[in-house]
Amino acid sequence: MVDAPRVCILSIGDEILNGRIIDTNAAFLGAELLKLSMPVSHQRCTSDSPQQLTAQLSQMASQFDLIISSGGLGPTADDRVYSEVESLQLEMTSIDNPAGSADGIMVEFANGCHYLALPGPPIECQQTFMQGVVPLLSDMFGDLPQMAYHTMHFIGAKEANIESAISELFAANANPQLGITASEQGVTISLLARPDTAHSADYYLQHCRDIIADKLGQWLWGEGDVSLAARVVELAVENNITMACAESCTGGQVASSLIDIPGASAVLNCSWVTYSDDAKQRQLGVDAALLQQHGAVSEEVARAMAIGALQKSQADYAVAITGIAGPSGGSVEKPVGTVCFAIASADGVHSMTRQQYTLGGRLRIQRQSVRDALHLFFLAMNDCLVLRDR
Amino acid sequence: MVDAPRVCILSIGDEILNGRIIDTNAAFLGAELLKLSMPVSHQRCTSDSPQQLTAQLSQMASQFDLIISSGGLGPTADDRVYSEVESLQLEMTSIDNPAGSADGIMVEFANGCHYLALPGPPIECQQTFMQGVVPLLSDMFGDLPQMAYHTMHFIGAKEANIESAISELFAANANPQLGITASEQGVTISLLARPDTAHSADYYLQHCRDIIADKLGQWLWGEGDVSLAARVVELAVENNITMACAESCTGGQVASSLIDIPGASAVLNCSWVTYSDDAKQRQLGVDAALLQQHGAVSEEVARAMAIGALQKSQADYAVAITGIAGPSGGSVEKPVGTVCFAIASADGVHSMTRQQYTLGGRLRIQRQSVRDALHLFFLAMNDCLVLRDR
Repeated sequence: MVDAPRVCILSIGDEILNGRIIDTNAAFLGAELLKLSMPVSHQRCTSDSPQQLTAQLSQMASQFDLIISSGGLGPTADDRVYSEVESLQLEMTSIDNPAGSADGIMVEFANGCHYLALPGPPIECQQTFMQGVVPLLSDMFGDLPQMAYHTMHFIGAKEANIESAISELFAANANPQLGITASEQGVTISLLARPDTAHSADYYLQHCRDIIADKLGQWLWGEGDVSLAARVVELAVENNITMACAESCTGGQVASSLIDIPGASAVLNCSWVTYSDDAKQRQLGVDAALLQQHGAVSEEVARAMAIGALQKSQADYAVAITGIAGPSGGSVEKPVGTVCFAIASADGVHSMTRQQYTLGGRLRIQRQSVRDALHLFFLAMNDCLVLRDR
Repeated sequence: MVDAPRVCILSIGDEILNGRIIDTNAAFLGAELLKLSMPVSHQRCTSDSPQQLTAQLSQMASQFDLIISSGGLGPTADDRVYSEVESLQLEMTSIDNPAGSADGIMVEFANGCHYLALPGPPIECQQTFMQGVVPLLSDMFGDLPQMAYHTMHFIGAKEANIESAISELFAANANPQLGITASEQGVTISLLARPDTAHSADYYLQHCRDIIADKLGQWLWGEGDVSLAARVVELAVENNITMACAESCTGGQVASSLIDIPGASAVLNCSWVTYSDDAKQRQLGVDAALLQQHGAVSEEVARAMAIGALQKSQADYAVAITGIAGPSGGSVEKPVGTVCFAIASADGVHSMTRQQYTLGGRLRIQRQSVRDALHLFFLAMNDCLVLRDR
């Protein structure tokens, strides 16, 4: 077995350096190269000003075996990759772009380092890589030791608690090598296993994965490349369960996060955005007196919204959300970030109130609320909630 | 006036290299540093394996005046920035993190290069930068020549057409320096102006901006840090217009893109996701015979959905969307990517059918459809559509 190549991803464009565009190509390429057992060790981003690319490449060619760039190939004047690479006076091979007009380029430096330039628009970068570059790489690097990568996703426990429960697995030289990250979606553990003379990477990965699942199973909601919304849709499809949503402060984000998932049409056939009191009454049958007595942001109103959505949709479960996403609308009793949830089924209703983190503003409050609503669907479908008292 | 510092952003973490996390901190820092007239010339990303950071820093300190990193500061075992920086044996200053427990760090290398390490979670990175780093930078670099940055957003014309209409402004040494990028939201032109002995950067920027607005005004929908959804809400608030949405294949994404915007509650009070034929009939009053005759994906049904939503919501405008986002559901007559739109007001209805790009799948078809629906609201509010024949 040969050593894995030293790989660097290079993103090209002032729009990335200036923060106007978030670089998604580097993440795509990193994930795909890992699947090919060629983990990326460095990423760089450089300007599309003249001579920047050639200056970078001449320096990088001695440090890496493979450099893959995105951006700078195209019809406009600031697309300089082609002319810059031409100035290197190396033999250029074209890589077909199946999704656009600007083809990719490959050159080989005298020391054997390969440089591949891909177009910048994400769809074009992805298609050119998958169709044109993947076959080239297997020709170039042949029989690499097969690594194995996996992720496990948790919700309902803190990062530090998750780590301390399995701290013995986090040694710097452990195989698999573990990473842990907290985000608004919960906590994710990543596992990257390498083979040795005794066992395959899959063997080491599976062994470690089972230990983690055993210790942290109660918080584990999914594994691999899956979102919480996709997991909820998957569970609903498996169990032939239908769902509905009634949303106020999240404005339809719970429904749209579900409908983003292929197959959602079988499980979510109706959903409401009832932002005003009037809409809550007219569309969901919420009692005016209830709104008057408890206010629109209350568990009572959330329960009434969920029951109304359940009845009108004839779904198996309905989730309702009503809260104060800010920036205005808060009070001492109900500050910005107060969000009430309810989930209803034929068995009954369960409701709760959350004070979401407000640092990060309206969008972050909404994202946390979407996560909590999806979590309610997930828990209900796993029979982890008591629904009663309609 | 002094020269602008040479600035490099360094992102730290295997989760970025492996593509599991998209690096948004680099974009945030790039945009904020540009506002401070310190444009970022390079970005890098490195592993959180031991000794990687010190190896990078020792090389970079000679090339840059300012290095700002994010990530690798925290409670877990793979957070190695603190111990790595400690090993450099430079005097460390702490930078308060107002949003979390892991403070930032600053050190100065012997040659005067400053290295600032910020925490990785985006909220903590942002808050630590804004509150702790910005004051430090103005102390460090003092009286920099004030640059000016601006963006202009277009929809309805192609990138190459936009560029050719103003090609004389794209010279490599022009001031302002122009960039152009196409995305699913349309085409954006960026302008970065520098001052000289005759005039301020603002002067050069304004002059060029006016030429562009003059030549391309018919496609210009917004300027600066604004989304199409935000522009639509802004126009609706200004003109006291209310809106409603009835969505099928976009699953509530038009409504949620509007409700993401502060102030949307004043202009969007009700919205429907009617995925099934049954929901279209019961919630929006679409005639069963119409569905039978033309199919759910038809301009006729889109018109009926828009009229139903208009009546039920009592809004000034209602947009309806019904289409085939795939991956299944397409036919020869109506392939995947076929999306029908309608907008209704008291004056009448306007409808259209689009064949969206299908490469990139369901999510991309949905995003294009959200853009087109928002564009309909925008055009209607600017009196650029004829609504008739209800």
